[in-house]
Amino acid sequence: MPLTADAKGVYPIAPTPFFDDGRIDTASIDRMMDFYHACGSTGLTVLGQLGEAQKLEHAESLAVASQVIGRAGELPVIVGVSAPGFAAMRALTHEVMARGAAGVMIAPPNTLRTDDQIVNYYRQAVEAIGADVPFVLQDYPLTFSVQMSPGVIKRIVDELPSCVMLKHEDWPGLEKISTLRGFERDGKMRHISILCGNNGLFLDYEMERGADGANTGYCFPDMLCDVVRLNAEGDREAAHDLFDAHLPLLRYEQQPGVGLAVRKYVLMRRGILSSAAQRKPASPMSAQAREEVDHLLARLAKKDPRAANLAK
Amino acid sequence: MPLTADAKGVYPIAPTPFFDDGRIDTASIDRMMDFYHACGSTGLTVLGQLGEAQKLEHAESLAVASQVIGRAGELPVIVGVSAPGFAAMRALTHEVMARGAAGVMIAPPNTLRTDDQIVNYYRQAVEAIGADVPFVLQDYPLTFSVQMSPGVIKRIVDELPSCVMLKHEDWPGLEKISTLRGFERDGKMRHISILCGNNGLFLDYEMERGADGANTGYCFPDMLCDVVRLNAEGDREAAHDLFDAHLPLLRYEQQPGVGLAVRKYVLMRRGILSSAAQRKPASPMSAQAREEVDHLLARLAKKDPRAANLAK
Amino acid sequence: MPLTADAKGVYPIAPTPFFDDGRIDTASIDRMMDFYHACGSTGLTVLGQLGEAQKLEHAESLAVASQVIGRAGELPVIVGVSAPGFAAMRALTHEVMARGAAGVMIAPPNTLRTDDQIVNYYRQAVEAIGADVPFVLQDYPLTFSVQMSPGVIKRIVDELPSCVMLKHEDWPGLEKISTLRGFERDGKMRHISILCGNNGLFLDYEMERGADGANTGYCFPDMLCDVVRLNAEGDREAAHDLFDAHLPLLRYEQQPGVGLAVRKYVLMRRGILSSAAQRKPASPMSAQAREEVDHLLARLAKKDPRAANLAK
Amino acid sequence: MPLTADAKGVYPIAPTPFFDDGRIDTASIDRMMDFYHACGSTGLTVLGQLGEAQKLEHAESLAVASQVIGRAGELPVIVGVSAPGFAAMRALTHEVMARGAAGVMIAPPNTLRTDDQIVNYYRQAVEAIGADVPFVLQDYPLTFSVQMSPGVIKRIVDELPSCVMLKHEDWPGLEKISTLRGFERDGKMRHISILCGNNGLFLDYEMERGADGANTGYCFPDMLCDVVRLNAEGDREAAHDLFDAHLPLLRYEQQPGVGLAVRKYVLMRRGILSSAAQRKPASPMSAQAREEVDHLLARLAKKDPRAANLAK
Repeated sequence: MPLTADAKGVYPIAPTPFFDDGRIDTASIDRMMDFYHACGSTGLTVLGQLGEAQKLEHAESLAVASQVIGRAGELPVIVGVSAPGFAAMRALTHEVMARGAAGVMIAPPNTLRTDDQIVNYYRQAVEAIGADVPFVLQDYPLTFSVQMSPGVIKRIVDELPSCVMLKHEDWPGLEKISTLRGFERDGKMRHISILCGNNGLFLDYEMERGADGANTGYCFPDMLCDVVRLNAEGDREAAHDLFDAHLPLLRYEQQPGVGLAVRKYVLMRRGILSSAAQRKPASPMSAQAREEVDHLLARLAKKDPRAANLAK
Repeated sequence: MPLTADAKGVYPIAPTPFFDDGRIDTASIDRMMDFYHACGSTGLTVLGQLGEAQKLEHAESLAVASQVIGRAGELPVIVGVSAPGFAAMRALTHEVMARGAAGVMIAPPNTLRTDDQIVNYYRQAVEAIGADVPFVLQDYPLTFSVQMSPGVIKRIVDELPSCVMLKHEDWPGLEKISTLRGFERDGKMRHISILCGNNGLFLDYEMERGADGANTGYCFPDMLCDVVRLNAEGDREAAHDLFDAHLPLLRYEQQPGVGLAVRKYVLMRRGILSSAAQRKPASPMSAQAREEVDHLLARLAKKDPRAANLAK
Repeated sequence: MPLTADAKGVYPIAPTPFFDDGRIDTASIDRMMDFYHACGSTGLTVLGQLGEAQKLEHAESLAVASQVIGRAGELPVIVGVSAPGFAAMRALTHEVMARGAAGVMIAPPNTLRTDDQIVNYYRQAVEAIGADVPFVLQDYPLTFSVQMSPGVIKRIVDELPSCVMLKHEDWPGLEKISTLRGFERDGKMRHISILCGNNGLFLDYEMERGADGANTGYCFPDMLCDVVRLNAEGDREAAHDLFDAHLPLLRYEQQPGVGLAVRKYVLMRRGILSSAAQRKPASPMSAQAREEVDHLLARLAKKDPRAANLAK
Repeated sequence: MPLTADAKGVYPIAPTPFFDDGRIDTASIDRMMDFYHACGSTGLTVLGQLGEAQKLEHAESLAVASQVIGRAGELPVIVGVSAPGFAAMRALTHEVMARGAAGVMIAPPNTLRTDDQIVNYYRQAVEAIGADVPFVLQDYPLTFSVQMSPGVIKRIVDELPSCVMLKHEDWPGLEKISTLRGFERDGKMRHISILCGNNGLFLDYEMERGADGANTGYCFPDMLCDVVRLNAEGDREAAHDLFDAHLPLLRYEQQPGVGLAVRKYVLMRRGILSSAAQRKPASPMSAQAREEVDHLLARLAKKDPRAANLAK
């Protein structure tokens, strides 16, 4: 089932689980997949920016993607295929699509500046991977230093029919969602799915602006699913209450570098990963950072029982 | 009273109040100063990045600084003097110090890259403004694209005795505070004041890491004062409770561009500014953004009575 | 006489002459102006990037501009007014236009990224300085990190009638000239003057691509004038022979940082400046660099008698 | 024979030859290798920035490296192994070292800013590839946006004994060579080989500053060999005469983007490559650019007979 522009809900960004010695922890992958199913995810993404893809040998990347796809069942799996050259991007795309991926995600190289450079890059990427492979446009200027105006996104959507989803992580980004949905409403641009990243830092209002859900890796994807559901049910204040309860921790996890360590630590405390280990080069948590996360979890537990008993 | 390395508490970043027609609103400056006094500020900063300094004629800058200094009484006033050249920086510094400023704040030009370039820039700046003028080192990579490692800050503090304060706005930045305080504890670096910016997004834990307070412009500086006070009194959970209540709005205001519009809007609703107007070029709030801020204020009012009746 | 889109020939970028003690050397300004007249310049630019404008007090900037304008006679004078804010840009523009400047030059702030940001910046700049002031669009990505595609330049030219000249310093830039002249030929864009900068590193072929001349500061502006003249006369090989003779030195002077020191040193050796001094912060020449420049001059003297007896 | 810090002479950067249909042209690889031998090269580099490495499938990269190494005989071959992650860097390094490479070249990712980040990156790279693999430090800020001060290079050389060569392409860069050689002379840093890149734009004076030769891809590597030889023989003016004769073309080829097209075109005209084709995405030469290169070759032929009859 290929990814389509109608995708909605929550697509967690899956971390890659490792044992303390650096080997890939396949049992944790299965547990993680079962957890994503259980908490109401509607899809997921592997080998993304925070999936430590760059620390994997090529064969390992394929093995992880294969296991995830195999365990995903009906859930569509998006695979990150960003690469410094189109040859590697094409090779990985073909391999994972053959294994059953629903689509791929492509981040822009951080050297792109002008509108034409950005559009041209995606034109060439589609030429490389094939126009039949659905792809996700990743718009994350904070990390990639590439700024895509709404007009550039529109040009890409207009020109490249295989662009079916925007991973929206611009910051600030609320007006961008409104602008893009305005293009659609005015018949100026076809509909695409907009799933929000940036750890969900503005998911509360992004949903109200017209986003279709989340595509991010926060350590409580079940909260993301609930917020998206509550919003869809029109229970606005309940959605905000739950979101606000998580915001202190979510903000903490959104920090670059240390964020992945926080995420893996909490997923370990939740019993999903057997270890919080990252492959090198890793950004480890200091003892004080761990105490802060424990403190945040203890405070969260007063409002969300899912956080109970997680602090060390 | 010159600024010293013992500065503590909350130094709000003062916005520049305008009427809707763009004229400077001096009555609002007085009200704002009275408010800063009343809410427990221990100093303040004018003509900073979010003070719209670049939209002021030179004479206007001096007039604003003079009025603020005149109304500040015992409170030390820091004046932002960042400029593209040392000639303009020196001229403005001498003029505001002569009017009674306690010190100046200097941001790095965004072209600096290597450690040596950064240290050399501050060496030259001190040579230009004079070694007798206390200055604040502004460390804000998110905005200025200049990354200062703890070692670089140490070199500047070691070499330039007139550096008395760090405006800490690195992100992530908790470990940096710990590292700098560790330098001090180990006798490797003299003590400097560390006041936190970045709208206070991590002020809760920054205080616990050893920061001396806040130097930022969030629209509830009274909350910042309370959090710093509660922390000093050892009332940890109360500090976090109050901080967390404000975090949804604080995060919203921390957005670049639209943030200043949010700040001025709330200060107007609080009766401090007579108008939320910015001089051009301005980043205005959309109608939907205004509704979102009203929604955030209404939700905040349930936890902090200071936000009651502010939403339109 | 306001600057127009018909400007042609060579507009040297004038350095600001200083004595060794840092005072402005007004006698050298007069000599320099007489030299520009004598060597066939058709205009000139002051207070540009390499005019050390940022090291001048505001009153000094005005004094330099006034003296240059007064001595320029019929030659149109462009004044650099790039500034971190529109208030300062407007103030300086009005002051120099009142003193007889022919137009102003505006460089983009290095934070601009998207096409819309660039166009919007120039729209706001024109709103600030007034639509009646002719301005030069400076396109120098190597220094300013702002990349303007031909389409963006076209949008600015289309929207802002007061844009009369492009200071073309993109690198590589030959195809950009051809593209812009193609727009004009196809009736898609009105004609503007294109004068080339970047120390003239590609002036030989830029003229053949359709540029109108040079707007740069190479220490032999008389060579630039000759190359432009020979090209206009159709004496292609003679133009290249002269250009190639200067290329080793020209390339050396084009280096950022040390380049200005080289330029001032040669202008001093030529008897135009009384000193090669720069105001601080300066990038001085090492003894070995000076020997290299002397060596380059000695070698150049074999092909261009104007370089004879200049080496120390 | 592993690469050592005593390397001298000219190591051309080998392009990857393609047929017009995109297949790798192995006969041209052999011809190119024979040419490198014949013209006096002392080593070479494959799969560098301008070797179109990112357009090769992994197996193709290995095949190209293997063929080059097989044909290199006694000449040491450096292989570019820069990669977005250490896993891929390690894998490629082990594969090419097993095939007989003399060492590898590592460019810094363009996200590095502080001195510590740069040193830490190379520390991790060596940990990944193994401390027994000689590596070349590529210092090319114009392309990679990473600025390495002499102090940072010294720290890397001090800490990592497997760093044996600097590919020097900073610009301006003459003082950097002098500073590094000064470190060595003062006993503060062990000796490393310094070979110059950036198309050789300053090779004339770089040799006089203490560089050991060139490591760059200019289409006349035989000229580079002659200049290095003449310099070693003390025939200074002859070295400069030859260099200056090539400078107009060399400068033209040094342009980013179009440069590789120029290089391949001239190598084709010289009979070394059977085609000037690049794999997509390519930056082709316009018809006018080709005429300009032909013009440059015709002019060069008057001074260097090797350029005779190359223009179309």
